[in-house]
Amino acid sequence: MRDFGPAEMARRNYIFGTIRKIYEKYGFSQIETPAMEKLETLTGKYGDEGDKLIFKVLNSGDYLKAVKGSGTGPLELDSRNMLRLISEKALRYDLTVPFARYVVQYHHQITFPFKRYQIQPVWRADNPQHGRYREFYQCDADVVGSPSLINEIEFVQIFNEVLNGLRLHDFTIKINNRKILSGMAEVMGIADRLISFTVALDKLDKTGKEKVLAELSEQGFDSSQLGRVEQVLDLKGSNDEKLKFLRGFLQDSPTGQKGLDEMENVLQTSYEVGVQNGEVEFDMSLARGLDYYTGCIFEVKINNSGMGSIAGGGRYDDLTGIFGMPGISGVGISFGADRIYDILFKRELFPSFTNEQYRFLFLNFGEKESMHSLGIVQRLRNKGIRAAVYPDAVKIKKQMSYADAMKAEFVCTIGSDEIANGTVGVKNMQTGEQVSMPQEDFLKTYLV
Amino acid sequence: MRDFGPAEMARRNYIFGTIRKIYEKYGFSQIETPAMEKLETLTGKYGDEGDKLIFKVLNSGDYLKAVKGSGTGPLELDSRNMLRLISEKALRYDLTVPFARYVVQYHHQITFPFKRYQIQPVWRADNPQHGRYREFYQCDADVVGSPSLINEIEFVQIFNEVLNGLRLHDFTIKINNRKILSGMAEVMGIADRLISFTVALDKLDKTGKEKVLAELSEQGFDSSQLGRVEQVLDLKGSNDEKLKFLRGFLQDSPTGQKGLDEMENVLQTSYEVGVQNGEVEFDMSLARGLDYYTGCIFEVKINNSGMGSIAGGGRYDDLTGIFGMPGISGVGISFGADRIYDILFKRELFPSFTNEQYRFLFLNFGEKESMHSLGIVQRLRNKGIRAAVYPDAVKIKKQMSYADAMKAEFVCTIGSDEIANGTVGVKNMQTGEQVSMPQEDFLKTYLV
Repeated sequence: MRDFGPAEMARRNYIFGTIRKIYEKYGFSQIETPAMEKLETLTGKYGDEGDKLIFKVLNSGDYLKAVKGSGTGPLELDSRNMLRLISEKALRYDLTVPFARYVVQYHHQITFPFKRYQIQPVWRADNPQHGRYREFYQCDADVVGSPSLINEIEFVQIFNEVLNGLRLHDFTIKINNRKILSGMAEVMGIADRLISFTVALDKLDKTGKEKVLAELSEQGFDSSQLGRVEQVLDLKGSNDEKLKFLRGFLQDSPTGQKGLDEMENVLQTSYEVGVQNGEVEFDMSLARGLDYYTGCIFEVKINNSGMGSIAGGGRYDDLTGIFGMPGISGVGISFGADRIYDILFKRELFPSFTNEQYRFLFLNFGEKESMHSLGIVQRLRNKGIRAAVYPDAVKIKKQMSYADAMKAEFVCTIGSDEIANGTVGVKNMQTGEQVSMPQEDFLKTYLV
Repeated sequence: MRDFGPAEMARRNYIFGTIRKIYEKYGFSQIETPAMEKLETLTGKYGDEGDKLIFKVLNSGDYLKAVKGSGTGPLELDSRNMLRLISEKALRYDLTVPFARYVVQYHHQITFPFKRYQIQPVWRADNPQHGRYREFYQCDADVVGSPSLINEIEFVQIFNEVLNGLRLHDFTIKINNRKILSGMAEVMGIADRLISFTVALDKLDKTGKEKVLAELSEQGFDSSQLGRVEQVLDLKGSNDEKLKFLRGFLQDSPTGQKGLDEMENVLQTSYEVGVQNGEVEFDMSLARGLDYYTGCIFEVKINNSGMGSIAGGGRYDDLTGIFGMPGISGVGISFGADRIYDILFKRELFPSFTNEQYRFLFLNFGEKESMHSLGIVQRLRNKGIRAAVYPDAVKIKKQMSYADAMKAEFVCTIGSDEIANGTVGVKNMQTGEQVSMPQEDFLKTYLV
């Protein structure tokens, strides 16, 4: 797990601030859920592998009491059986499941459609790898209670606006639709194997076409089915060409046609509201692992970044069903702040202003002088200006290297001469230019 | 643990934003540390009671392996002994200890004096009571590596500015100094019992004078010592009168005189930089429990709020010593966001603007109409204006009640007639006033 120092925080806040501002402009309101959920709320929602990666919190107090009271000797218990006796709470693993729990718990107070965003850390007991951390922030936005495609279009606009806002102009928003994937499975006669089909497809980017076909062959796809899959995987061309091809390919699947209608609507309207054609790509092989998606699915990549997707999402028709409230349609997206950070850092796209700590730093020449400076500093602060007196009357060299480290814009000096004359020395740290001016003029200049 | 919905989040962000902005103006930079620390980093820092309240995280994977490999039968283990075998990590209990760990870990990269602030949740396995939560945010600012009193003065200014910024004008910043308390203990001949003396004093506000004296008597204070304690507790009057009394009372204690010098300096300079005299109170009975304080100590209350302190802090001379880096002086403060929230809420001091979700909400009359509206909405958004089209073409009554719930400022209608005429209906939701105007005029008005 990581510490974030001042420079990293400034950069992270720049990313979060950009995302937050755009989410809010689109009408999303922020919520926060607690770091800990009931263990039972999280268990079983992320598959067996996910369950293992959930951080469990030990019950407080004499946690072994329940074990001793259970009539089972602790030696007879394994880590898995003992768990329910010594842990009731766990750290959230993502923001989606706590949000589903939230919607069900407060549904009588919520005005639907509910547009919420949430920017909070999540925790996974993963092996730390490059770009994977045990604590990381997710930046989610979801709309629940509205089946309209306007929501999908707004998310395309949000992707577009956030990435342009971060000056990452060279990106691709890949879109597909689960109904199109279902349609493909239907016309290939493998509707009952939709999940394994999508799981295999999902690996296309990483492993290549041959391995995907080999995996499907192992799963018992026959050569005619494999031929049709290959036909789809091989298809290049514009979004319109792909739509045209699939209109024919899926002509016998009403579900597939519905998916194509949705795709056409989202693409067309996105262009109309100013998203560039080349930025939105209909990618028929995009599947995304999570099997709760039912409609449109998204994935966003920064071109030539050598990095996986930096955002994604999709439509799900029954997320709250697992908590006893079926039939609420939702659609949501998530930005991965860490990957975005790495790309911005590598490409030197962070604005430099996020670093400046002081506009004015007053040097300290002793008690009397520093008290005098403090009065002026206070007048600057009253105007909202970042200013301070260096707290200790140490060597000027040390004070100046602090000013450098804090990227102070101006260093000001008020020594005993300046007090006597009523002047202040002002050094522009960028140009090195130094001037001496009456304190009154100084204040007039900066307190306007 | 609590969920925070949109309205609560807006209010909480208002508090955090006010504090953050002022911390930054005074030159503090933000850091963040991870939710989990090594258990050994936290254990032993908060007393036995504190250790019990730390949330421990279960090791991931087969956590019982270490128990089985330890050669001890689990039956022989109690919850306490077993802990070191099954838990290596714990949730942070405050921001101070992780910060001390941070300073020691990165001291070679840090430019001192290091002014950092940190706004993050902490977790305590406390019994939830009124105003006490198992997850709550702390808002800390500390300066380490500078012994100057200018830092103490700046914190008084920060208290003053934050509370006035939150429109909580009626507050008291109580100040005392550990050196004054040490001086008192010295002249009473109980220097070796300073801790129990301050612990007893700390209860004055809650239990009253008689109980404090009774407790000290039980601890073996003799009647002459108790008389002198009472003399101090009884002293009323202005800050100057208290200083004058103590100059005499502590005349034989150089430590006490040093404390009075510091107190005088902080009070005097605070007045000079604009903190009102009545807002700063020299309170000789203020002790604060934590025994790592060595100089100035602070506590802030909102007058007539019926609430305990909403902020506090002090000077410590050896916080990093526990992590092997002795002799770094620091001073810090912390705001309790939950108590501030409760007072602002009760006094209706939250600004109402934190509630408004949309400036313009366009009603949805069907696909063609909503697509037309979406184009106009996009032009508003490009100017940074919060706007949206209601996503579904449902009954207008439902759409209007959504507009009400979201506190939309204007509701706009573009139906088929309006498309034909090039007009838009605009309803001011506050006044109820409705006008119809050419879309061009509408855009001209709001896109300036």
